[in-house]
Amino acid sequence: MNPELLLSRIRVVLCRPSHPGNIGAAARAMKTMGLSDLYLVEPKRFPDPEADVRATGAVDLLQRAAVVASLDEALAGCLFAVAMSARQRDLGPPVGQPRESVAQLLAEAAEGPVALVFGNETVGLSNEEVCRCQAAVCIPTDPAFSSLNLGSAVQLLCYECRMTAFAGTPPLARQGVTPFTSPTATADEVEGFFTHLEGVMTATGFFNPLQPGRLLPKLRRLFGRARLERDEVNILRGILAATQQTTRHGRKD
Amino acid sequence: MNPELLLSRIRVVLCRPSHPGNIGAAARAMKTMGLSDLYLVEPKRFPDPEADVRATGAVDLLQRAAVVASLDEALAGCLFAVAMSARQRDLGPPVGQPRESVAQLLAEAAEGPVALVFGNETVGLSNEEVCRCQAAVCIPTDPAFSSLNLGSAVQLLCYECRMTAFAGTPPLARQGVTPFTSPTATADEVEGFFTHLEGVMTATGFFNPLQPGRLLPKLRRLFGRARLERDEVNILRGILAATQQTTRHGRKD
Repeated sequence: MNPELLLSRIRVVLCRPSHPGNIGAAARAMKTMGLSDLYLVEPKRFPDPEADVRATGAVDLLQRAAVVASLDEALAGCLFAVAMSARQRDLGPPVGQPRESVAQLLAEAAEGPVALVFGNETVGLSNEEVCRCQAAVCIPTDPAFSSLNLGSAVQLLCYECRMTAFAGTPPLARQGVTPFTSPTATADEVEGFFTHLEGVMTATGFFNPLQPGRLLPKLRRLFGRARLERDEVNILRGILAATQQTTRHGRKD
Repeated sequence: MNPELLLSRIRVVLCRPSHPGNIGAAARAMKTMGLSDLYLVEPKRFPDPEADVRATGAVDLLQRAAVVASLDEALAGCLFAVAMSARQRDLGPPVGQPRESVAQLLAEAAEGPVALVFGNETVGLSNEEVCRCQAAVCIPTDPAFSSLNLGSAVQLLCYECRMTAFAGTPPLARQGVTPFTSPTATADEVEGFFTHLEGVMTATGFFNPLQPGRLLPKLRRLFGRARLERDEVNILRGILAATQQTTRHGRKD
């Protein structure tokens, strides 16, 4: 199924968010990943200028957001919902890793609307709310500091949705320029360079062909690893040639 | 190698951040994922109360952050650096997907310190800065809205670092309780329930054994999918028994 269509079927439900800044951050996070359907269950302050500021270019999501009185209302019509939970709840659905939970969510999204459900910044979701969902997900933070910001949690799960919808390789931003490359140098071009280099090193006395040691193999190893391009060979040889013209060490005097 | 040790070797470098709130958000994002080494190149306002507020419990990272005058200073001692970049740069290193770039970063971290380098909120990194790094990474946002918050970008890449360091399955938060489960019901326990249910349905007239239709197979399909546990069978039979006692429909009168 079309990845953008799948993503458009995912609602993000924020239950009783305290800080309007987090609502704005969630909207921005959703929009960067191609989600657009925001539900707010009893937000403390909304609409609010702070939400608009943090949303930046995603104010349209705030304007279209559904403000409802209960999680049941937010989930109306949904086939499947995943609760964000910092821990396993007694009687709640089993808590999974982000990637497995998101894979399940997207599989269900192929059939119809689904939801990602987030709790209040301080107290999270109630047990009753978690039990309204068919699955739960925990973002694996450092056990020593698991204080994940609400907007960050939304960002991470929306990102995983996008990664999964595009099978791990969403298209990257439109490329402003083509990266500079030149054709790989042919073996004879590379050999021409090595011969040139050896000549210069010999002429300057840096290399003694009678006592070669391991200098040449070391240089071959270095440039071999770099997989020289034709332009680079030309540049290197230009550098060598320039030293020869300056010092005349390349001249047969 | 120990995942925590690997994560501790990753520096996060913010180049010329404008908003102290984003510095605080970055510190919090890092700490949730087990990173701690923050470098700030010419921050516009730092230290700043707004950074402390957004950092919440990660103010210690701000206090220990290194404030330096150039990216070169921030990268001193690093073996490898990945630049966050929204696009391919002329002559810059090739831009990769987050997971491949982070895998490379962690492979290098096995050898020593490495860095994730982020640019200014508005203008990003300069070409010169990107060229100081051995790789570049682009977070695949929706091409129609790629305005990813700086703190969110730090959060996403630190999360990918943690996921990769722990091979995709970092330990989840310490489980507060064991999820409630009871042994799966045996076949005879389940059959006992079905017999009980059929008896109640028959006694109440809901089910006519002479015209059974598809009711029983439908119920078997439903409960078969649920893989009933023993406690659940007991509960269901308790419910049935309770209806029998109230209405006496189960009595052979």
